[in-house]
Amino acid sequence: MTQLAVREDETMHIVVLTGGIGGARFLLGVRRAARALDAQVTAIVNIGDDLTMHGLRICPDLDSVLYTLGGGSDPGRGWGRDGETWAVMAELAAYSAEPAWFNLGDRDIATHLRRMELLAAGHRLSEVTEILCRRWQPGIRLLPASDDPVETHVLVDVPQPVEAPGIVEAPEAVGATGAVGATGAATQPSGTGDRLIHFQEWWIRYKADLPPRRFDFVGADEASPAPGVLEAIRRADAILLAPSNPVVSLGPILAIPGIRKELDQARAPITGVSPIIAGSPVRGMADRCLAALGIECSAAGVGAMLGGRGHGGILDRWLVDPVDGETLVEGAEVIARPLWMTDEVVTSKIVLDAMGIPNE
Amino acid sequence: MTQLAVREDETMHIVVLTGGIGGARFLLGVRRAARALDAQVTAIVNIGDDLTMHGLRICPDLDSVLYTLGGGSDPGRGWGRDGETWAVMAELAAYSAEPAWFNLGDRDIATHLRRMELLAAGHRLSEVTEILCRRWQPGIRLLPASDDPVETHVLVDVPQPVEAPGIVEAPEAVGATGAVGATGAATQPSGTGDRLIHFQEWWIRYKADLPPRRFDFVGADEASPAPGVLEAIRRADAILLAPSNPVVSLGPILAIPGIRKELDQARAPITGVSPIIAGSPVRGMADRCLAALGIECSAAGVGAMLGGRGHGGILDRWLVDPVDGETLVEGAEVIARPLWMTDEVVTSKIVLDAMGIPNE
Repeated sequence: MTQLAVREDETMHIVVLTGGIGGARFLLGVRRAARALDAQVTAIVNIGDDLTMHGLRICPDLDSVLYTLGGGSDPGRGWGRDGETWAVMAELAAYSAEPAWFNLGDRDIATHLRRMELLAAGHRLSEVTEILCRRWQPGIRLLPASDDPVETHVLVDVPQPVEAPGIVEAPEAVGATGAVGATGAATQPSGTGDRLIHFQEWWIRYKADLPPRRFDFVGADEASPAPGVLEAIRRADAILLAPSNPVVSLGPILAIPGIRKELDQARAPITGVSPIIAGSPVRGMADRCLAALGIECSAAGVGAMLGGRGHGGILDRWLVDPVDGETLVEGAEVIARPLWMTDEVVTSKIVLDAMGIPNE
Repeated sequence: MTQLAVREDETMHIVVLTGGIGGARFLLGVRRAARALDAQVTAIVNIGDDLTMHGLRICPDLDSVLYTLGGGSDPGRGWGRDGETWAVMAELAAYSAEPAWFNLGDRDIATHLRRMELLAAGHRLSEVTEILCRRWQPGIRLLPASDDPVETHVLVDVPQPVEAPGIVEAPEAVGATGAVGATGAATQPSGTGDRLIHFQEWWIRYKADLPPRRFDFVGADEASPAPGVLEAIRRADAILLAPSNPVVSLGPILAIPGIRKELDQARAPITGVSPIIAGSPVRGMADRCLAALGIECSAAGVGAMLGGRGHGGILDRWLVDPVDGETLVEGAEVIARPLWMTDEVVTSKIVLDAMGIPNE
């Protein structure tokens, strides 16, 4: 690669829409590819998983990127900090503090404390993220999709809601089904109740085992893109969708009207990387999310969900694994190449292929 | 001791004004003595040390009582939790979060998180304390002196204020001396500046090494006694002043006008226990606080500072160590008996003596 100085206006700009741990690992490859190209990277990160608990504002997807790209993530668990300890959480349990189902490591808590104090001081989430990046030096620009809260909630069926352990039914939620009254549980043991819970509660507490009926990106309609998001998309030479969960990682980003509109108008090609190989999610529980929307868990199903540009969707290109080589997406070019992100070098080649850049 | 049920209105009520670690250990003796007497104990605890850092509301004196009486304090250090770890603090340092001079253990942080979340939910400090007591079961009633913030600040001389490392001078503070201008430090290296700092900064960061010129109990004038405080004083059969730092542990409590007035009118005898033996504080740095006020560091000096009832003070009795047996306090009875709180049993005998109750 050239060592010549590249003029500012000749620098290649890459934008990645991402969320989850798979997205963070994909960014390792993007960063590596960008270094080879002298390109700049902006990651627009999902905030739908964000939540407040124990008074702390927690941004799991932003933190996964910080820790993974900053060299501070736990390699075994895949989430959270390396060398993590759990003293605070054990103490919170001794205080019977709820929720008790969300794992908060001591090192991780320091990040949340820092974020919370900066937010309380009046900084916006994008500014807080920039400050946290001073420590982690991720080597890319990290932007939350929005400074406004957008939280993913899941409408679930709760069997026998009144008797379900640990679940407090809001009266209006029970009433919404019209099937279970105040004494319904005792007299109608097979009755069901709707309950809208935070994505994290569904994901972590219930291990995605409660059948989801709907995902709500609460606040998305009114959310403004964070400062820099629209400019990054506008200026981009390549826009990539990480192989993240299309429903709950990419979904909340795409649900912000300003971002969706800017993507529709983007001059750069938009390339998606399938998170599904041979009908199974590479990581996580995308299958359960897709099922809730009636979408086939396949490269074709997710490709059709995201859609081709000019056909109501956003994809110009759709990268699928060779096992899914037959995939067709109307309005998008389908490219088959191995998609297993076995290490950073392999991932960077996926990224180069996604941008149509020849590599050995 | 009798196993007969004691009628509610015959129960003896003991009130203790307390702060600091010495105060917490004194309460161990009070609790033991009270059990022997079937008496109820209410501790009115100093809140002058309280402060907010890293977004956490920290109440060192309340926590010292909780941990000490709840069996969760570190026996070696004397403050904080047993089995403590320091992961969060190390991470906050990695984020360059300030202040870095205040030690916050992981287990301790869980208490502050719990407190903060309850405060944010609208609970008053007295209610939060009651909730925290559910875990720690201190065996006595614990009341903050006030639900309103009362924070002790210290006016200190800062040599070469503009150049002092880590100290940011507020312009008005510099201006207050009239001696140091914007370029004063360079041209007047021997100049001094006034700076009002939180007690904890003086105590922990500067190890009480900066000569204090004044202690301000910020908010005390407007603070209302916490619910239950006045009633406890009114109902008390015995009122004890723990051998706490008279300036910064008892001072903020006594500076709350409603509490002071109720003590003046109390029907129960008020007995102070000297924190000074043979001219030295039993624990801590009371000598430096007393010096700032021009008070002799002696049992007589502190006795005179607290004063006899009917002579502008609050003491009916003043317990001093036999080495200070010559002590006289106008308007108060001075009682000499060994005051070293070597263990809980010994301390309980000091307590019984303080109440004038014969014990073997």
